[in-house]
Amino acid sequence: MELLTINNVWMMICTALVFFMHLGFSLLEIGLTRQKNTINILFKNIFIITIGLLLYAVVGFNLMYPGDFNGFLGFAGFGLDSPLTTDGTLNLAYNEGYTYWTDFLFQGMFAATAATIVSGAVAERVKIGPFMIFVILYVGIIYPIAGSWKWGGGFLQQLETPFYDFAGSTLVHSVGGWAALVAVCLLGARIGKFKDGKIQAIPGHNIPLATAGVLILWLGWFGFNGGSVLSADPGLTSLTLVTTSLAAASGGVIASLVAAIKFKNLDLTMFLNGILGGLVGITAGADQMSPTDAIIIGAVAGAIIVFAVSFIDRLKLDDPVGAIAVHLVCGIWGTLAVGVFGNLAGGPQFLSQLIGVTSYALICIFSSFVILFILKKTVGIRVSEIEEIEGLDAHEHGMDAYPDFRLNEH
Amino acid sequence: MELLTINNVWMMICTALVFFMHLGFSLLEIGLTRQKNTINILFKNIFIITIGLLLYAVVGFNLMYPGDFNGFLGFAGFGLDSPLTTDGTLNLAYNEGYTYWTDFLFQGMFAATAATIVSGAVAERVKIGPFMIFVILYVGIIYPIAGSWKWGGGFLQQLETPFYDFAGSTLVHSVGGWAALVAVCLLGARIGKFKDGKIQAIPGHNIPLATAGVLILWLGWFGFNGGSVLSADPGLTSLTLVTTSLAAASGGVIASLVAAIKFKNLDLTMFLNGILGGLVGITAGADQMSPTDAIIIGAVAGAIIVFAVSFIDRLKLDDPVGAIAVHLVCGIWGTLAVGVFGNLAGGPQFLSQLIGVTSYALICIFSSFVILFILKKTVGIRVSEIEEIEGLDAHEHGMDAYPDFRLNEH
Amino acid sequence: MELLTINNVWMMICTALVFFMHLGFSLLEIGLTRQKNTINILFKNIFIITIGLLLYAVVGFNLMYPGDFNGFLGFAGFGLDSPLTTDGTLNLAYNEGYTYWTDFLFQGMFAATAATIVSGAVAERVKIGPFMIFVILYVGIIYPIAGSWKWGGGFLQQLETPFYDFAGSTLVHSVGGWAALVAVCLLGARIGKFKDGKIQAIPGHNIPLATAGVLILWLGWFGFNGGSVLSADPGLTSLTLVTTSLAAASGGVIASLVAAIKFKNLDLTMFLNGILGGLVGITAGADQMSPTDAIIIGAVAGAIIVFAVSFIDRLKLDDPVGAIAVHLVCGIWGTLAVGVFGNLAGGPQFLSQLIGVTSYALICIFSSFVILFILKKTVGIRVSEIEEIEGLDAHEHGMDAYPDFRLNEH
Repeated sequence: MELLTINNVWMMICTALVFFMHLGFSLLEIGLTRQKNTINILFKNIFIITIGLLLYAVVGFNLMYPGDFNGFLGFAGFGLDSPLTTDGTLNLAYNEGYTYWTDFLFQGMFAATAATIVSGAVAERVKIGPFMIFVILYVGIIYPIAGSWKWGGGFLQQLETPFYDFAGSTLVHSVGGWAALVAVCLLGARIGKFKDGKIQAIPGHNIPLATAGVLILWLGWFGFNGGSVLSADPGLTSLTLVTTSLAAASGGVIASLVAAIKFKNLDLTMFLNGILGGLVGITAGADQMSPTDAIIIGAVAGAIIVFAVSFIDRLKLDDPVGAIAVHLVCGIWGTLAVGVFGNLAGGPQFLSQLIGVTSYALICIFSSFVILFILKKTVGIRVSEIEEIEGLDAHEHGMDAYPDFRLNEH
Repeated sequence: MELLTINNVWMMICTALVFFMHLGFSLLEIGLTRQKNTINILFKNIFIITIGLLLYAVVGFNLMYPGDFNGFLGFAGFGLDSPLTTDGTLNLAYNEGYTYWTDFLFQGMFAATAATIVSGAVAERVKIGPFMIFVILYVGIIYPIAGSWKWGGGFLQQLETPFYDFAGSTLVHSVGGWAALVAVCLLGARIGKFKDGKIQAIPGHNIPLATAGVLILWLGWFGFNGGSVLSADPGLTSLTLVTTSLAAASGGVIASLVAAIKFKNLDLTMFLNGILGGLVGITAGADQMSPTDAIIIGAVAGAIIVFAVSFIDRLKLDDPVGAIAVHLVCGIWGTLAVGVFGNLAGGPQFLSQLIGVTSYALICIFSSFVILFILKKTVGIRVSEIEEIEGLDAHEHGMDAYPDFRLNEH
Repeated sequence: MELLTINNVWMMICTALVFFMHLGFSLLEIGLTRQKNTINILFKNIFIITIGLLLYAVVGFNLMYPGDFNGFLGFAGFGLDSPLTTDGTLNLAYNEGYTYWTDFLFQGMFAATAATIVSGAVAERVKIGPFMIFVILYVGIIYPIAGSWKWGGGFLQQLETPFYDFAGSTLVHSVGGWAALVAVCLLGARIGKFKDGKIQAIPGHNIPLATAGVLILWLGWFGFNGGSVLSADPGLTSLTLVTTSLAAASGGVIASLVAAIKFKNLDLTMFLNGILGGLVGITAGADQMSPTDAIIIGAVAGAIIVFAVSFIDRLKLDDPVGAIAVHLVCGIWGTLAVGVFGNLAGGPQFLSQLIGVTSYALICIFSSFVILFILKKTVGIRVSEIEEIEGLDAHEHGMDAYPDFRLNEH
């Protein structure tokens, strides 16, 4: 009972920290985009958190953890269980690590994250109505089904050498990242991003808020990774926090160093994205790495970020906040790194990691393409040119983010 | 001893989260008002936290928890007890859920909240000196006396079917809300709010900060409600976090939906206020509701918010941040909802809830009216017209919130 | 095992809170300076956190806690220990309060704090490259060596009446503060700060963010002081949170009161610095004070702040954020206060406190002077006049913090 209580306290704290990541994502996304689309981005993010949690209660949790199932798709029914046993007391016979309620809420906070990642990539030009439909389908149905393959005990868990993804480099970050990639391809670039074949930087309007967002995300990652231990096990939780923080630190330092060499510039945005890349990279194996491993994984992620951002730009893909580089590319890297540095490092584990990455690529690309393509061909997914130029805040929301400030047009 | 330690850790974390709500309130209030009064609002909020905590140490804690008393008014003496027993060790024989110190600090963080609610409603025109006097009396004396009626074991606790208010829909939020209503009536509307009989929107100057404020408040509510279990009981605490979050989510979604239908607009502010309404609404019974109950309570609160905000506007009451709708109206709703959905739902409980709501209405309206009316008739409670137009920051504080930015006059 | 788990959970939470202080410092520093140097300050702060943590892993932790050593300088070798015992399980035989990993991370989060304090004092004119070199040396080598004198069991711990510094009024805050003082002397004032012998106020550009920073710092101090108990001991941790919060509150109230009398103005910045002064002041003895002691210590710190800020100004020392007054002056006050109010208050303890303060003064002034003087005489530590006037963001980073906003030149 005491151990359950301790474990549950830790898990609830981690739940709160993962919830707080949504503020981090929101500030990062608005900070790296233009002021005229700020209300729109905030509205999308607030929508994702709230609808995501409700959908997870109604269908997601029972899609993701269906109990015994065929390994690909199962469903334990609508809604949450009653909180009471037949004699009217709360049912604690669930798990020694946490209660049924804690489990639901912790996982529910994760669910919304995947859609938030997409939100950043499609910012400043996506039509909000269709995006809301996409969110409902992707968070409510695709994310939990995909999650059941591993965390729900599905076929990737049942491989001879099971696929390993501790806290979601693939299950959360790549799931968001693949959809971000598909969405960016279907949407096209923002007006002015690629002019006469040249890449134009569109600077973010509020770098202090973006920076605050990254530090809040780092804080939230204490819960994201620390809670993925699924108990308060002192060794595993604390090792996880150490590897998480060291990977974040080395990701940032290396990204800023590579950027300084490549661009002769002390680039704060690259520093921030390097931190995030390190965090995403360590997430798949944060409980299995030594400090040195963590520093290496973070450093590689930091270097990857700089080249990935440039590469995505050169592909004429317009990802305003670097979500694809951070969440998809570093998510893949982190997942594969488990096969290189993890407890069972070696051929079989690496192969399983590859199988996992590929499986998620398939379901995510396929499902997000189908949803977004249908939306594109029916209601359309992109705002009108005039709306994009004048800003989504004025057109979709009739509000300004900063009405007392004088602003530049661009 | 171990159980005490766990419980106490949880309670300290919740204390920290409730403290953090003061940042949430501060950002929300400045975000929803004009830049020229930003310093003033921040000053008021910082004053409320600091003086509130000191007053709670000197008189409040012992007014609110007087031990055996007549059920209406008791006082256990000035100041806090010594931390030491006679043999020089810390006295832990207080409670199995937490220490004396944790109890004081957790309750002290609550105390300041009531005044902060008023602060939002009177923003942009209240004279700061008299408001500070009001805060001292309301936080230092009225709030704890009113609190003693229920949480201190007073007459509302002694009803045959005791009045129930788990975490303060009435004891905290309505106590603030009633005073907000009285203050708004006595103060009058801001210049320009009601022009030629028409309602003029006065847009808030920094919506990103307001949004951050709401997410911080949601986070803080994990502690506000989670800590009100007064132990780390795994079932109750985790159920409470689930009901709290689901009510917040459904409050926001329904408020934005109703607003979209009513105003043909995706209104972020209404979304945010809907979340807060859901949170206030669930607070009275967060430990007794099923997930479905929580979603319903939140949804009703969300719908209420939209109509209450309009209704208060039509009454020509000027509440810049919607504090009355959120904290008073949803606070009443949540308190009554315990009689409809709670463990003892039914006539007797509903009646007790009505008695509770009425009792707090009486003491709060009466006391805040007396204090504010005397202040109005003596030193005045409203700034001069010129000060209001030019902004309270320049006149009361000699400072600008954003001196490097070019601003619009309005 | 259960006790270890509880203690470790508390320590991990405190670690997270201390990490979060870096967001507090960042927001405070940019808020109190001009917009044109915002990116630069954020870059410095992000650099300090990341490199600080990496250096602490590589050398700092083993310099600060070298095991048996001569009391002045010891080193237990590069890098962290392996997480695994020989039989492949995690080694928990470290401490009943927390694991090896938790210890490292908690202390690592402290390490970066000292350099952050300097960052504020040198803002708006320091050359970033040399500052980065200073940070590497000061965080990586000086801070941990100085720390070993007391927390590592060195000579100050071995005094007959050991020097006492619970959570770092001296070991962290003064260590930062002395270097800030030296740096400010060597750097000189910002252009325009002292004109024709008169002191010119240079207003901070974003007071809401500065205020948010202070509230985040207060929150973080729950972990800074609460975690310095090094266990979840319910009495000590909760008493510590109470004394910490009461000192913050009284520091703020008294500072604003003294400022109101001295300057006839309700000065928000002074209120905020008073809160910080109270927090720094209580830090050396937060586990030994009664609530009344805490209120007195905070109040004195609050009064000190107002006079110290003025005094430092009159010395023509330009400290944009008041770091010297807050961290050095109040750090000394808090350290000495342990000799006046602490468990062993009296002559011998006071003398030990004086010895401690003096020892840290010597190592910090000496080392920071040597590092900064060499940097000044070789690569230079101050940006060019044109860069200072146009802003460090444009020159060092090629980025603006707020590109969509119209700004005032100054």
